[in-house]
Amino acid sequence: MIFNLFNKRKKMEIKLEHHLDSIAIPANLRINDQIKKYREKCSKIGCHRPYHHFAFGQSPFSPPAEIINALRDNANKHSYLPTAGIAELRKAVSDYYNDVFKLQSQARQVIISPGSKEIISIILSVTEGDVLIPTPSWVSYLPQALILKKQVQPIRLHEDSHFKLTPALLEKAANNSSHDQHILILNNPNNPTGAVYTEDELKALATICRKHNIIVIADEIYARTSFDFSKFISMGKIFPEGTIVTGGLSKDRSAGGYRLGIGVFPDNEKLIKDVLIVAGSTYSCVAAPIQYAALAGFSRIEAVEKYMTDTARIHATIGRIAAGLLNNIHGVKATVPYGGFYLYVDFNEYAEELKTIGLTNCANLCEHLIEVEHTALLPGNSLLLPEDDFSVRFSFVDYDGDAVLENWKRENPSSEQEQTAFFKAYCPLINQGIQNIERYFSQVAEGRLPVHA
Amino acid sequence: MIFNLFNKRKKMEIKLEHHLDSIAIPANLRINDQIKKYREKCSKIGCHRPYHHFAFGQSPFSPPAEIINALRDNANKHSYLPTAGIAELRKAVSDYYNDVFKLQSQARQVIISPGSKEIISIILSVTEGDVLIPTPSWVSYLPQALILKKQVQPIRLHEDSHFKLTPALLEKAANNSSHDQHILILNNPNNPTGAVYTEDELKALATICRKHNIIVIADEIYARTSFDFSKFISMGKIFPEGTIVTGGLSKDRSAGGYRLGIGVFPDNEKLIKDVLIVAGSTYSCVAAPIQYAALAGFSRIEAVEKYMTDTARIHATIGRIAAGLLNNIHGVKATVPYGGFYLYVDFNEYAEELKTIGLTNCANLCEHLIEVEHTALLPGNSLLLPEDDFSVRFSFVDYDGDAVLENWKRENPSSEQEQTAFFKAYCPLINQGIQNIERYFSQVAEGRLPVHA
Repeated sequence: MIFNLFNKRKKMEIKLEHHLDSIAIPANLRINDQIKKYREKCSKIGCHRPYHHFAFGQSPFSPPAEIINALRDNANKHSYLPTAGIAELRKAVSDYYNDVFKLQSQARQVIISPGSKEIISIILSVTEGDVLIPTPSWVSYLPQALILKKQVQPIRLHEDSHFKLTPALLEKAANNSSHDQHILILNNPNNPTGAVYTEDELKALATICRKHNIIVIADEIYARTSFDFSKFISMGKIFPEGTIVTGGLSKDRSAGGYRLGIGVFPDNEKLIKDVLIVAGSTYSCVAAPIQYAALAGFSRIEAVEKYMTDTARIHATIGRIAAGLLNNIHGVKATVPYGGFYLYVDFNEYAEELKTIGLTNCANLCEHLIEVEHTALLPGNSLLLPEDDFSVRFSFVDYDGDAVLENWKRENPSSEQEQTAFFKAYCPLINQGIQNIERYFSQVAEGRLPVHA
Repeated sequence: MIFNLFNKRKKMEIKLEHHLDSIAIPANLRINDQIKKYREKCSKIGCHRPYHHFAFGQSPFSPPAEIINALRDNANKHSYLPTAGIAELRKAVSDYYNDVFKLQSQARQVIISPGSKEIISIILSVTEGDVLIPTPSWVSYLPQALILKKQVQPIRLHEDSHFKLTPALLEKAANNSSHDQHILILNNPNNPTGAVYTEDELKALATICRKHNIIVIADEIYARTSFDFSKFISMGKIFPEGTIVTGGLSKDRSAGGYRLGIGVFPDNEKLIKDVLIVAGSTYSCVAAPIQYAALAGFSRIEAVEKYMTDTARIHATIGRIAAGLLNNIHGVKATVPYGGFYLYVDFNEYAEELKTIGLTNCANLCEHLIEVEHTALLPGNSLLLPEDDFSVRFSFVDYDGDAVLENWKRENPSSEQEQTAFFKAYCPLINQGIQNIERYFSQVAEGRLPVHA
């Protein structure tokens, strides 16, 4: 009878939009959940082999105390707010971008969103044209475009231009397209390569943009993590009439979980209105307490500015050392980063061996690396590369950020030797994880499927 | 030369998606901004004629202290979280809905979103079929559907069924459609009419839904404001296999500005996965501190439950009195609400006179009422009614909620007489605003364009 009772619970077939069938849960989120679960399991059974998590791009530090305190102080803010954001915050963001990045914006050009990811998605939804995505790329641009049924043109970047988009490649993409307007997503500093564009490079790209009606979404969320910030130039300064600069609190101010992003738009009333129409019918406004907290993040408070300088120096040091260690592995090539907290690592030297031992694509390789070496990397197919391209993204943030920041300030390591010692002492999971990769590929080189030593 | 310098700043024509051209900024948000500005101006110049703001649906109370304190205690939570929400919160929401609304859900069926508006939009984006919207409706369903290029079928409701959707009207809409699946948005308690569906009414609708492949988005965000909660039945209980129940902290727990909504889905893995794919590519996850704060809102804490009971009684009292006063105005008909904080008010008795004096549509009428009587109502065209339908939404929340709640608990007015005295003492803007409307229409009745007395 119980059986019958259960059977009585009706099922209904629900028809879903087909274009979503080809889109997977983003690999970074999926692997992050997976590794978290493994770590929990490990810690329960007192496992001695830790997981090395290089597949997720979260700042390892706590946000500046000023921002956390501001959230605490504004916990009672519970009213609906204007969709574009509170006037004070839009003004602060505009002033901040004008001051720090030499834009010439007004507060009316700023829109606050729950993360820069959502504002990028909304911009894609309101603008006409195909989407030009330089690859390797961040994991989310492609699914965002596919969800919106936008046409996508990946632009494959090459080592000889340090994985930067060149005017020639951009022009070729525009000429290839049947659209008379295009949307270029230009991520600078770049995730995953760590490349940073020079002023001349941006100017050359802007020339092509003007010639071919290319709107730029300049995803500059990592701007303040640039290792030499004096050299960072915003595309919003170079190409103000056609660039939307996006950013937020998530990376340089370490508050990814606060979900606050910003867009600085060209002074184009209709574009801004259309974005607000979509924003008003989806997220409505960003959480009120978070908006007030963000004021502390965009008001050039000295402690917050110093925090960003210190943490960028730490990223620079760890990135340089990690790249060096990876490049020391036979047959492995890693980019040398200029900002952000990623390296782009190329294992294609081992493509034949990998295929021979049954690891036919990069996703297989990465799964196997987790299994055998407890070492997680983001496979190239998530970066919009072909499945059999054995390149990966390596996030060098798997350490205890608060302890590292504290020790960094105390020890202030400056020589190469001091910094290497610092790295070995405080970033053991990265150090050991790279050794795991080395051991793994030494077995691949011998033509056998690696096992844990 | 300065002139030339300014002229040099380039403009770029940016082509935007045409389907957005017909969509306006939602009138409730627009009028809310407008009235806020008027009030600021007024308070600066010490104006003696206040604005009566009946065009926006925000709970007038502060959220329960338990929720605010939980946010304060979790201000330091800064990590990215799973897109569907933290496991504890999904479990708490599932338990809450099972306990309070008699659903039979599992935590895996719950998705946390930045407001129920965004989860409704995402559901519309992943499901096939046309969207059936009973009217008068909430302002945002139509723009949400239009942004997503969904086909919309408004279903006009009538006074003789107390503005509730009937099985006959629903079946007619399904038969009218060329789609073989439909999405019905069923808002219960209803914004703007205040109607609440009985169990039998929902069962009769579910029969039609099963027959015609109609998926239901049951927007039950006002559920706990039902004036007699013992009579509220969730569509998720009646039609679990085809209903997504949406809700959140915004209305009964007064935390609209926290932006936390929830969806309880049928146990349909592919549907939930598709929603998470879109969510992961847009909002990523709800702000971490807000998610932890929301745990306090869904954990059946006694003080929070009492808060909801008290505030629902206040809404019931004010709604009943306001409806009575409006119905006393010659030629004006207002619905009697059973939940929420809205009345639907019909001025069509004056349609001829209004047109004669130059107020040819409801938007004109509402603008004129703000100008002449400082009294803001939401015009019927925002409720998806024809432009020349002179019906409006009246939000009866324009009072100092914290003072009213405090006084309510102290005075505990129970007789009709005590409650009327309470209303007059503590809701002067509503009381006076209704008198303004009366004065206004007494002039309309005389065939002249009203002026302020």
